[in-house]
Amino acid sequence: MESIRGVLVDVFHDLPSNSVELTKVPHMATTAGDERTVQYMLKRWQDPDTGLDRAWREEYLVYLSFPDPKTPNKVTVVNPSDTVLYTAREKEKEYGPDQKDPDVVQPYAAYAPAGHPKGKLVYANQGKPSDYLHLNQTLDLNGTIAITRYGGEGRAQKAINAAPYGVIGVLVYTDPRDINDGRMSDTNETYPHSWYMPPSGVERGSFNTQYGDLLTPYLAAKDDTYRISMAKITGIPPIPTQPIGFEDAYALICELGGRPAPSEWQGAFNCTYNLGGPGFKPTSTFKERWETGHFYEVQPQQGSVQVQLDIYNRGEIKNSSNVMGVIRGSVEPDRYVIYGNHRDSWVHGAVDPSSGTSVMLEVTRVLGRMVKEGKWRPRRSVIFGSWGAEEFGLIGSAEYTEEYYSKLSERSVAYINVDISVFANATLRASGSPSAQSVILKASKQVKTPGSESTSVYDNWIRYFNRTSPTYGVIPNVGFLTGAGSDYAAFIHFLGITSMDISYTYDRTKTSARIYPAYHTAYDTFDYSSKFIDPGFTSHQTVARTAGNVLMRLADSLLLPFNCSDYAESLEAYLAKALELYTEGLAVHNISIEPLKSAVKTFRSAAASLDQMIRDSDLANETPLKVRGINDQLMLLDRAFLDPTAFPDQYGFRHVIWASSKASEPTFPGLADAYERAALSGLDEDWEEAHRQLSLLSQAILGAAHTLEEVI
Amino acid sequence: MESIRGVLVDVFHDLPSNSVELTKVPHMATTAGDERTVQYMLKRWQDPDTGLDRAWREEYLVYLSFPDPKTPNKVTVVNPSDTVLYTAREKEKEYGPDQKDPDVVQPYAAYAPAGHPKGKLVYANQGKPSDYLHLNQTLDLNGTIAITRYGGEGRAQKAINAAPYGVIGVLVYTDPRDINDGRMSDTNETYPHSWYMPPSGVERGSFNTQYGDLLTPYLAAKDDTYRISMAKITGIPPIPTQPIGFEDAYALICELGGRPAPSEWQGAFNCTYNLGGPGFKPTSTFKERWETGHFYEVQPQQGSVQVQLDIYNRGEIKNSSNVMGVIRGSVEPDRYVIYGNHRDSWVHGAVDPSSGTSVMLEVTRVLGRMVKEGKWRPRRSVIFGSWGAEEFGLIGSAEYTEEYYSKLSERSVAYINVDISVFANATLRASGSPSAQSVILKASKQVKTPGSESTSVYDNWIRYFNRTSPTYGVIPNVGFLTGAGSDYAAFIHFLGITSMDISYTYDRTKTSARIYPAYHTAYDTFDYSSKFIDPGFTSHQTVARTAGNVLMRLADSLLLPFNCSDYAESLEAYLAKALELYTEGLAVHNISIEPLKSAVKTFRSAAASLDQMIRDSDLANETPLKVRGINDQLMLLDRAFLDPTAFPDQYGFRHVIWASSKASEPTFPGLADAYERAALSGLDEDWEEAHRQLSLLSQAILGAAHTLEEVI
Repeated sequence: MESIRGVLVDVFHDLPSNSVELTKVPHMATTAGDERTVQYMLKRWQDPDTGLDRAWREEYLVYLSFPDPKTPNKVTVVNPSDTVLYTAREKEKEYGPDQKDPDVVQPYAAYAPAGHPKGKLVYANQGKPSDYLHLNQTLDLNGTIAITRYGGEGRAQKAINAAPYGVIGVLVYTDPRDINDGRMSDTNETYPHSWYMPPSGVERGSFNTQYGDLLTPYLAAKDDTYRISMAKITGIPPIPTQPIGFEDAYALICELGGRPAPSEWQGAFNCTYNLGGPGFKPTSTFKERWETGHFYEVQPQQGSVQVQLDIYNRGEIKNSSNVMGVIRGSVEPDRYVIYGNHRDSWVHGAVDPSSGTSVMLEVTRVLGRMVKEGKWRPRRSVIFGSWGAEEFGLIGSAEYTEEYYSKLSERSVAYINVDISVFANATLRASGSPSAQSVILKASKQVKTPGSESTSVYDNWIRYFNRTSPTYGVIPNVGFLTGAGSDYAAFIHFLGITSMDISYTYDRTKTSARIYPAYHTAYDTFDYSSKFIDPGFTSHQTVARTAGNVLMRLADSLLLPFNCSDYAESLEAYLAKALELYTEGLAVHNISIEPLKSAVKTFRSAAASLDQMIRDSDLANETPLKVRGINDQLMLLDRAFLDPTAFPDQYGFRHVIWASSKASEPTFPGLADAYERAALSGLDEDWEEAHRQLSLLSQAILGAAHTLEEVI
Repeated sequence: MESIRGVLVDVFHDLPSNSVELTKVPHMATTAGDERTVQYMLKRWQDPDTGLDRAWREEYLVYLSFPDPKTPNKVTVVNPSDTVLYTAREKEKEYGPDQKDPDVVQPYAAYAPAGHPKGKLVYANQGKPSDYLHLNQTLDLNGTIAITRYGGEGRAQKAINAAPYGVIGVLVYTDPRDINDGRMSDTNETYPHSWYMPPSGVERGSFNTQYGDLLTPYLAAKDDTYRISMAKITGIPPIPTQPIGFEDAYALICELGGRPAPSEWQGAFNCTYNLGGPGFKPTSTFKERWETGHFYEVQPQQGSVQVQLDIYNRGEIKNSSNVMGVIRGSVEPDRYVIYGNHRDSWVHGAVDPSSGTSVMLEVTRVLGRMVKEGKWRPRRSVIFGSWGAEEFGLIGSAEYTEEYYSKLSERSVAYINVDISVFANATLRASGSPSAQSVILKASKQVKTPGSESTSVYDNWIRYFNRTSPTYGVIPNVGFLTGAGSDYAAFIHFLGITSMDISYTYDRTKTSARIYPAYHTAYDTFDYSSKFIDPGFTSHQTVARTAGNVLMRLADSLLLPFNCSDYAESLEAYLAKALELYTEGLAVHNISIEPLKSAVKTFRSAAASLDQMIRDSDLANETPLKVRGINDQLMLLDRAFLDPTAFPDQYGFRHVIWASSKASEPTFPGLADAYERAALSGLDEDWEEAHRQLSLLSQAILGAAHTLEEVI
């Protein structure tokens, strides 16, 4: 453990310079700026003094979506004779040289189709199914354009939910209530005066619901790989969609006619958010302008002013690179600890992802130096991945797992993801598979909070996020990896590799921002990050030390630092919720939940036995094969929860415990979704699916328990 | 190796007594006779002197199909007023006490539906699609009953192919040409005078196309497990079907009217096989009888005599047992060598499966004694499985692999299947994954042929089955496990465990019987087996010694005796065939076959490197973990060819190299089937599937190659 302590106190002094280098120019996936970062990563990882044993690039031909730089997307308000009454900003406002860079991509909704819909505007809140349902009760949505705010629903889903009602275009913006704690003015309130989003700031994003290259599901996207036709892509907006800044949203929403929207729909604007007539109110400024213009041959109809979207997005197959590096393990080179982060950003990406890439580079520099100096070599191999095209749907990491599926399945001990390493500088936040909880907690006890000589990350963390564990009492809360929010998705959901995601984040008593306000905007720059997110990069250091500590424990410990009883505790929590919510409803349909109860019980007992066996063993004096056998049980535990038949229609979701779920309660995702669907529809086939989910879940948990039992 | 030699010369003297005990009564799956064999296996495996470390039973509730003992299935010829003119035998003729046993199940087609179709008879050869196509050119098949002979097509498929033409019932029989080298008379030619099938003999069988419990695909069939509704079962006969003996088939076929069937359709009967008018010829004996009968109120129409099927089969969910036993490994208990055979038979099953069960019991007795005497314990664990309900569709082994999927995937070194151990006593026959070829060949060199002191099994084998290997020259031909013919299916196809199937078989110059003639009849008895299949049980001994040798090498060798370069050779042979057959046709559709070529090349080179590394290593002096690492590469090689997205509609087929295929040429099954379908239909979507198959195949081979490359 002394070597770990050594690393812990390492200064991690290169963080600011890493960040400067990584954020010099916009580096959207597959652009020249992206290539520049590829070269930089390679240079660093091939450095003779601080590099890794080996580093190289791996390329994939992936389907991306871009606006047309020559014909920018436009959002206008037009009168019936197509006179433009209002034009939304095409670019974000320039506050410094970063925004002036010609390579700043215009805000757009990646994968939303091109098109020129024109229609009356309605305000659709967050674009959830319930939002459109509500609108539809009083309005004919046919031919309308919906303006929605970010949050509450996936990006693509806002348009997917809208289309069945005849909505022909979608706008999306970030309401200052959701991102800026209500602040709106860039004269003194928002960036460059604070971390808040300026009025013209726009969150870009990938508008898809499936991760990985959309044309090559389950196949690594190479030259001659089979590609589905673009028309067969599902889960992307069926109608043109465009994100805009809140200053434009303000201009549009405050002029909407019709009834007032429900109170939960109201945002921070100093006007009533109306639903739309559909369209604007008769007294709207657009209306006035139109009335005072010189096109007056036709007497205007009230509310006849429309919103026009001119979207020129186009799909392109582009060459995206992962940069890979390894430190060879000394004793078990065939066991991999994988540490990764994406490299591509939407613009300069100082926070997303360069805060994480800076940390990764600092970890590799510190470890690389020890390796090059011959002072240290991990027991197991460490693989570093700098993923490409994450912003378009975790593409680089997904293609990598498709290409090396078998090798990674057989040998990977864990995947550590540090994407945005510092959202804010209040506290650590970590998510992961339950068996990884203990190693994260241990590491967090050995690292001090930024600037402190005495307070551990653990002690600070427990004040912000905690839970009461039946086993341990009050401990910091390690979240679950239920979604596909970053590159851990393919590792945990597709491959069943024990994964974790680590960052520093907010004090929630101080802000209700749904994410740091410059997220995916042209303001996510070194200037922003170094001034408002982590001045001095001390939280970056803390994350580097914590993640580095976790990594070294995973790579160096004789016994893998995984705890299978912690997995049992999480399964029991999910079970308690499932019993509470579903027992009765299932019984009505003659479906017994007993097999699930029994499976969790068997799992707990098998985990307890294995733990006991480990405690009773003097592992340092055991045969290497005995220790390897136990380590294999621990390493492969998450793998045992994979079932490719569980969610056949959801790409890359095979882990039956952590799959994403629409259900609101924290419990087994497949069962929850199937139960809720059946309860809603009452259809026999839906109850059958609920039963199937219950059976395959019980079988997976029992199967996992079998892997923990005495090996023969 | 001395311990192996020790076993080799062991007398294996208990084989006849094992067989006597196992074949005392009929032991169809889940019957009292089956339970008797369960008890016997448990007694043997729990024997304090010769038993295993542990033995137990595992139960599944599986969907089987039986005739109604109170209302036997009937096949009759009737005139228009339903007077019975002819009745097929309900039971096989009794030649000895075995056939008199009341527990001999009436011949039937398991899973064929109950029903009472009546129609004119047609002769449909083997019931292949091309056979019905041919008939349909000149006949209206609507409302007909088709009589077919076994062979050329799967059992269920004969009815599945028929139904679209309006055929309402199917009969199936074994033509003496196909099973008896033309012999037909039981006065001196057939059993009890020889091994040939008596005229009343009927091959029973499971009429399904999917293996495993039909109601619980991918789920182990337990009490509360989700079951699909019986109506949703696919791949079973949609119309009533019944197997009959060739004496009844003779009576029916030789009276058929209509045109003569093509010459390839003709069998051994001393009459012309006509297609049917449909129905019988006007001069048929049925006709005459009818005309000379006393029911003459209606003047008969020519050919109006019909065949009536009265089928009372019914599905039942029954409790089926596997009997499991283990010998714990001393060094790597978490590595499993699995040896299995089914226990259930259709009737007494002396050959199928008791010849294999006898061998398994003899292997466990010999190994068990060494273990109990403390003389030997294998390096790795050995698991023995006596599977239930194989005859109904490999059910016991499939449920076992579903229940323990993760554990078996992680730890299984190999699966050895010895089902029918002795078809005949001429030569060894073996099939398996290419990486297992070398261990089978080595074992066969150490064992002598029955009764010989000098000729090795290898030397004898090479005279019967051989091929020219680019690497080794002329060697015995180890076949591939492409289908689902026995319990290896779930292990190789579903789990990707390196598997092999071993038996003694025919001299093909002496018989053209498609299988030993008593197969699935009431004549597959100890009397039959000991007189005509293997008098003295010396071939049983030889198989026991060979399979036992293979097992001990797998369980005991420091380095697993698998050869990955032999896998490369097989892939190259498949590739050569694919290049020859598909390159041009694919190119026409802009699909390049280069990725496949390149993948096989990469695999060959990775295999060569690993082999070189092994040759260059002094493994006995290497660290245990280094050897374990190499062994893991070898153990998991077949696993790397699994892709659950490859054949989503075929239960339990995930191995992209050995899946079953309709294509006639020996090459990659998914590509072959998809190519042939596309070439036939010309549809874009079929060519897309061919491309997808090519891509996933190439990716699997490349992925497998990656697992053979240097571990980091």
